[in-house]
Amino acid sequence: MYKIVFMRHGESTWNLDNRFTGWTDVDLTAKGEAEAREAGKLLREAGFSFDLTYTSVLKRAIRTLWLTLDEMDLMWLPIEHDWRLNERHYGALQGLNKAETAALYGDEQVLVWRRSYDTPPDPLDVNDPRTSYHDPRYAGLKREQIPLTECLKDTVVRVMPAWDDAIAPAIRSGKRILISAHGNSLRALIKMLDGISDQDIVGLNIPNGQPLVYELDADLKPIRHYYLGDPAAIEAAQQAVASQGKAR
Amino acid sequence: MYKIVFMRHGESTWNLDNRFTGWTDVDLTAKGEAEAREAGKLLREAGFSFDLTYTSVLKRAIRTLWLTLDEMDLMWLPIEHDWRLNERHYGALQGLNKAETAALYGDEQVLVWRRSYDTPPDPLDVNDPRTSYHDPRYAGLKREQIPLTECLKDTVVRVMPAWDDAIAPAIRSGKRILISAHGNSLRALIKMLDGISDQDIVGLNIPNGQPLVYELDADLKPIRHYYLGDPAAIEAAQQAVASQGKAR
Repeated sequence: MYKIVFMRHGESTWNLDNRFTGWTDVDLTAKGEAEAREAGKLLREAGFSFDLTYTSVLKRAIRTLWLTLDEMDLMWLPIEHDWRLNERHYGALQGLNKAETAALYGDEQVLVWRRSYDTPPDPLDVNDPRTSYHDPRYAGLKREQIPLTECLKDTVVRVMPAWDDAIAPAIRSGKRILISAHGNSLRALIKMLDGISDQDIVGLNIPNGQPLVYELDADLKPIRHYYLGDPAAIEAAQQAVASQGKAR
Repeated sequence: MYKIVFMRHGESTWNLDNRFTGWTDVDLTAKGEAEAREAGKLLREAGFSFDLTYTSVLKRAIRTLWLTLDEMDLMWLPIEHDWRLNERHYGALQGLNKAETAALYGDEQVLVWRRSYDTPPDPLDVNDPRTSYHDPRYAGLKREQIPLTECLKDTVVRVMPAWDDAIAPAIRSGKRILISAHGNSLRALIKMLDGISDQDIVGLNIPNGQPLVYELDADLKPIRHYYLGDPAAIEAAQQAVASQGKAR
């Protein structure tokens, strides 16, 4: 039996501002840093250790991992930064807050983009300064690999090769793995692992900074999964995520 | 022409306590953290960027790297943790302060261990709890690869394969590299690069937290080297290192 631990980054400055973040590289808030440290404490106290860690190339996930590893006294563990674990790209919505978005596109359209599995927001224009084309962290990619927008389905297509080519072989080789990533890249992985339908995955909310343990059988099929933290805190954190993007 | 930047970690708690540290995994002091951030600021302001970073498996070097990368907004850069970049192993002296060491071994003997190129301190007993045999970060090594003591000559022998097998090929492939390591693992690299004699290398003091730039020709021979920081600050930091280990 294998175990893998998933963790969504702690609260970011744009979670707090209620902005669509996507590939924008915003940092954690002080609360988000505290959540990451608490996650490390939970993992340490539950006796977890790891051999290998994965994260995205976005600092809110990297800092969450750093703080977790620091708390576990495991700063020396290898870290694989994989752009394919990035958050869903939010297209032309990146940087807008809910009020701005509703004013531009209308409430109904915004709901479609947030709740639909396969309808992406408008893409960024190729000349928009918000594109990732000139960001050195993506310099090794072909231009067509760098999204201008994504629906969750697109994110699944992008994330899956990271699982198939890197993470799954590492699990099979016996490595104990911690993944610090984002709401939608984790949804993509969990959709695949648990065989969740296109409809149901949209309703799955992953709380910030809460270690989520998956126990897998020899074929990497889930046996069970559970959050490490206090159930009431998890429930509150999931509610907080579910209400993100609602008007205030 | 190639460029590579070396950096000794910021001040550690045992630098401050005047203890022999070696492979003991002590953390930075608040001053050491500030030095690491300042190093990142200097590098950023001088227009440096990197493609790949190396560090040891000891947290004082890792945290120095993290703080430097954070300050440069380069947290996403790949980090290679290489145990061969660890500090010189200080054998039975690890954990002792200067006064304790002088009481146990006499002042003259301690001076030999600190200043001699090829006389190691007494080794740790294999059953000493201070050995690294049961530390998971060295679990992939054969027992004979894990030192019980080292003279600087031993450190050179251990560090060189990291250069030959990993760092030098990466430089040749065009990667811009930052190395965050330790006084003696950096001495080992610099001895090799500059062809410094066994006698002279012992007198070379590398200040904490100061980016040291080496410009290399196509054969990786040094053209010139310089510290990025203010010369007076460098001089003061070198003096501080030179006087470490002296009675207070």
